[in-house]
Amino acid sequence: MMKNYDEFHAGDVVLQSGAVLGSATLAYATYGKLNDARDNVIVYPTFFCGRHADNEWLIGEDRALDPSRYFIVVPNLLGNGISSSPSNSLASGGAKFPFVSLYDNVRLQHRLLTERFEARRVALAVGWSMGAQQAFHWGALYPDYVERIAPFCGSARTSRHNFVFLEGVKAALKADQAFEQGAYRRPPTEGLKAVGRVYAGWGFSQAFYRSECDIKDLGFSSLEDFIVNFWESLFTRIDANDLLSMLATWQAADISSNTIYHGDLAKALGSIEARALVMPCDTDLYFPPEDSAIEVGLMPNAELKVIPSIWGHSAGALGLNKADVAFIDQAIKGLLAA
Amino acid sequence: MMKNYDEFHAGDVVLQSGAVLGSATLAYATYGKLNDARDNVIVYPTFFCGRHADNEWLIGEDRALDPSRYFIVVPNLLGNGISSSPSNSLASGGAKFPFVSLYDNVRLQHRLLTERFEARRVALAVGWSMGAQQAFHWGALYPDYVERIAPFCGSARTSRHNFVFLEGVKAALKADQAFEQGAYRRPPTEGLKAVGRVYAGWGFSQAFYRSECDIKDLGFSSLEDFIVNFWESLFTRIDANDLLSMLATWQAADISSNTIYHGDLAKALGSIEARALVMPCDTDLYFPPEDSAIEVGLMPNAELKVIPSIWGHSAGALGLNKADVAFIDQAIKGLLAA
Repeated sequence: MMKNYDEFHAGDVVLQSGAVLGSATLAYATYGKLNDARDNVIVYPTFFCGRHADNEWLIGEDRALDPSRYFIVVPNLLGNGISSSPSNSLASGGAKFPFVSLYDNVRLQHRLLTERFEARRVALAVGWSMGAQQAFHWGALYPDYVERIAPFCGSARTSRHNFVFLEGVKAALKADQAFEQGAYRRPPTEGLKAVGRVYAGWGFSQAFYRSECDIKDLGFSSLEDFIVNFWESLFTRIDANDLLSMLATWQAADISSNTIYHGDLAKALGSIEARALVMPCDTDLYFPPEDSAIEVGLMPNAELKVIPSIWGHSAGALGLNKADVAFIDQAIKGLLAA
Repeated sequence: MMKNYDEFHAGDVVLQSGAVLGSATLAYATYGKLNDARDNVIVYPTFFCGRHADNEWLIGEDRALDPSRYFIVVPNLLGNGISSSPSNSLASGGAKFPFVSLYDNVRLQHRLLTERFEARRVALAVGWSMGAQQAFHWGALYPDYVERIAPFCGSARTSRHNFVFLEGVKAALKADQAFEQGAYRRPPTEGLKAVGRVYAGWGFSQAFYRSECDIKDLGFSSLEDFIVNFWESLFTRIDANDLLSMLATWQAADISSNTIYHGDLAKALGSIEARALVMPCDTDLYFPPEDSAIEVGLMPNAELKVIPSIWGHSAGALGLNKADVAFIDQAIKGLLAA
């Protein structure tokens, strides 16, 4: 299989926690070309359990993210199995993999853009879910460097409720003794399937299930077929320690949790100079629009635009629903034109 | 310890499924006295993992459910560990316990009221969550016998989304190998704790956690304290097979799933002659008010009254939040006066 991505080898990276990530590797894909002014960069990070190819649904010549105009960089989240992860780290793999924050991720992405590409500006940082959280980080950590951000179905800080939801996901996995505190020799399959079943209720809205979109739109034959062949299979593919590494990153996500903002979220949000378009979905169960409204209220240059959809959190996922894709794409076109 | 309830021994009961529940026992508590006309009965069934004493918060001489006026009967749900349950059945205990439906439950409750008490009418069937589902069953199965129903935070039929949420709960428990397909000799504690962690995100709303009601109102010292000492401890007390029995009952709940209505929910709802007061909480994540609005729209004599609360599904739980208790009590007073 052809490797459709490149790697940025960052050496031994001292993480925010003080721990060292040895031979840190950031895997990334690019679309389009860097212009002579080196300012047509769009950074579009991946999401929980996603990989760069899973972002391609929003990229295209007819799309806002147009590779004939922009140089689109899709960095893989640390822990996702392609960038440095528990499953691929020789020195500190498995359960020994250190905790990495989104701050660590975005600093590494910044090094990629500045050291390898010598990019002068980021025209847009955009992403879904944990990708949205990274877009927020870009805005807060590099206010002079980032012109626009478009986080959709995500937050600047993981809410307490979102944290609790993820505690359930984590507990379902760890209830499987085959997990063996991360020292498993074969995958803890029952735990990973349980993760899928727990996630199923959260990933789409009540109205999605009421309308039977799993059958009528996604083509599954029954609810059980959807749970098994969409949800369980989504997570049985993932290495359990990778999953837990990304979960820990997500639970701790907070643009103010660093020595710049010292936990002052209002200050961090207030420091985002980028023109921001924040797009929650109005039926998202764990990044609800109320949270986005609060965050937008603390940002100097932000617009809240709610995605009107019954697809819940998955309104922004994988291009599953055409109407949502069109809405998001159109909104980003507007932002890029502004 | 004094036993604060009575038992109705129903003999060998043929269930809806055709299976036999041997030596079926319905445990119940009563408050107040049956009047001479035998028509002052309020039936107030318990909820998922609840027991009769857990219903007492809504009963009192200053309350709608006033034992000086009404004869209040609180039957324990089959499977709850007091009525016939996997944990207390000699002949068919543990994983061999047969599936029981809410139809089976309410038929048995009807026998209790008619055979033991010779009650002429039910003035009100009321309940929270699965208790609400039983109140709906009372209205649909005995339209001539029930004058009023007041289901709160519940539904006439378990929605597909609610079903999926419960799949997650079930999978978290079963991921624990100590469960041994129900043949455990010691409790599958990790699985039961995982149930608590999964439930934690569902049982209250996003806004509840955003407002830190777990700390500010319920007095827990931290989110983790709340998860461990409220949620985990709620479920580690429950026998795993009992829990799964009640879950199965819940997942299958449907007032039309019987030989009276043959799966025609609209017909079943349309047959509820009782004056009905249906009270969802506007932030309930698994019995959302939209579902109640749909059901009320199909009922001939029903009012929808949304509980305005950020306590989510737990607006109707255990009297945790005074404002919600006052709202519910006041509304039921109005219904009883009508």
